[in-house]
Amino acid sequence: MSRIVYLNGDYVPEQDARISIFDRGFLFSDAVYEVTAVLNGKLLENEGHIARLVRSCRELKLSLPVTPAELDAIQRELIARNQLREGAVYLQLSRGTTGDREFDFPPAGTPPTLTLFTQARPVINNAKAINGIRVVTLEDIRWHRRDIKTVGLLAPCLAKEYAHAQGADDAFLVENGLITEGSACNAWIVTPAGTLVTRPLSNDILHGITRRSLLMLAETHAIPFEERAFSVEEAYAAREAFISSATTFIWPVIGIDGRTVGDGVPGPVTRALRAIYVDMALRATA
Amino acid sequence: MSRIVYLNGDYVPEQDARISIFDRGFLFSDAVYEVTAVLNGKLLENEGHIARLVRSCRELKLSLPVTPAELDAIQRELIARNQLREGAVYLQLSRGTTGDREFDFPPAGTPPTLTLFTQARPVINNAKAINGIRVVTLEDIRWHRRDIKTVGLLAPCLAKEYAHAQGADDAFLVENGLITEGSACNAWIVTPAGTLVTRPLSNDILHGITRRSLLMLAETHAIPFEERAFSVEEAYAAREAFISSATTFIWPVIGIDGRTVGDGVPGPVTRALRAIYVDMALRATA
Repeated sequence: MSRIVYLNGDYVPEQDARISIFDRGFLFSDAVYEVTAVLNGKLLENEGHIARLVRSCRELKLSLPVTPAELDAIQRELIARNQLREGAVYLQLSRGTTGDREFDFPPAGTPPTLTLFTQARPVINNAKAINGIRVVTLEDIRWHRRDIKTVGLLAPCLAKEYAHAQGADDAFLVENGLITEGSACNAWIVTPAGTLVTRPLSNDILHGITRRSLLMLAETHAIPFEERAFSVEEAYAAREAFISSATTFIWPVIGIDGRTVGDGVPGPVTRALRAIYVDMALRATA
Repeated sequence: MSRIVYLNGDYVPEQDARISIFDRGFLFSDAVYEVTAVLNGKLLENEGHIARLVRSCRELKLSLPVTPAELDAIQRELIARNQLREGAVYLQLSRGTTGDREFDFPPAGTPPTLTLFTQARPVINNAKAINGIRVVTLEDIRWHRRDIKTVGLLAPCLAKEYAHAQGADDAFLVENGLITEGSACNAWIVTPAGTLVTRPLSNDILHGITRRSLLMLAETHAIPFEERAFSVEEAYAAREAFISSATTFIWPVIGIDGRTVGDGVPGPVTRALRAIYVDMALRATA
């Protein structure tokens, strides 16, 4: 069955969702996106994703052609039309086009391009969430506004390809010896002393919605944490490591650059924090 | 009259040139491009552009679905169909799509998306070439493989917007106090001693086809030059400055950050080098 996707006000079969070759999303990566997880047919933490979208738009002077409430309604309509129970809703907003290629922003009033689609995938009972993943470290060559969620994602694509070529699942990106984040996720370690560590917010990393919730849940559950940059050496020596993102929640990292993390199996803090987050998520979408 | 553009083997009216929203060029900036100038209805330095395209493809493991000779034929066909005398032919190759969004490269054999279109514009008698432009300096926040000509061009778009907001025409991008290049062009100065200076090739800058030809022409015409990085302060103190690219050839820079460069008018070395290049270009396309 073909998916129904949303494109500029219309709900169309996915094969009919087509845009101009002059769209600035295609010619200039002049577009932002968000991915919201879906559990039990309901959106998870969508307020956070829409708030981040609004921030991305503000940073780039992009105008959102619908209100946040309308966006939420489109997302729910897509879930219903595609009978999605578990997975994600993807949304992308580009600056549209005047019908030609010019670097300059188009005149005010030029219609942006808004498209959304669903993706079905296991979120809760995901093999990687249960068994963990292996990562390799790699120089972070991305641009320096990683806090804006743009579609300039070629470096993350290359990082994942590099990881696969090394027999790993994903990459930890490194700048000046310090891990910034994963290729499309935030990076975390648990120190030998049992403290959660993740990099503080700045233009160097994406301001993860799941990251923020995990910090709140850690606080609530009295799990000690620090927001600070950590080095590759510290990650090698960590007792546990994991990644977080909207659609993975938490995936344990059991190996880094061929070295075993901790006991080589998902650790207790990682498993506990995932269980806490999953519990919150299931209750929020019950 | 609507342009005829090329898309995946077809010549279609520009308004009919549409791609899937799942195209990796749109979702991931997973695409490369080239722009070849057209004079007298003929392609200028096209061998260099196609060679660079082949290099970009190799660096990204992108496969070109046509031979260089076929590409050249498509470019010439577009020039003929659109009766283009002066301007440019743009070409873009993206990694296509499997019909969904996944970071991983699609399986081998997935058809890439190849599109080309023409743009009419004055190249020789261009007001900016004659009168010069003003630039502002700005931190270079782009990714670290600027030698690959990808469509990840949001930072250059933002740089141009910033320049316009400051009343300037373009930006010189700065990293560690040294100018890398312009927002979509190579940057040059002429020192007080009369030496041309432009940054050497590396992953920090685009390997300009016009840049390379200008260095060859400088050699032929015994204009002293050095390939080395230069600072913002050195640019302020320069006798002349200019930018180079495929479709500007050379545009004099008569102001930097509100300071006057040299006498505030296009300088003699800049004008001489442009004249030499234009002469070569006109003879090559006669």
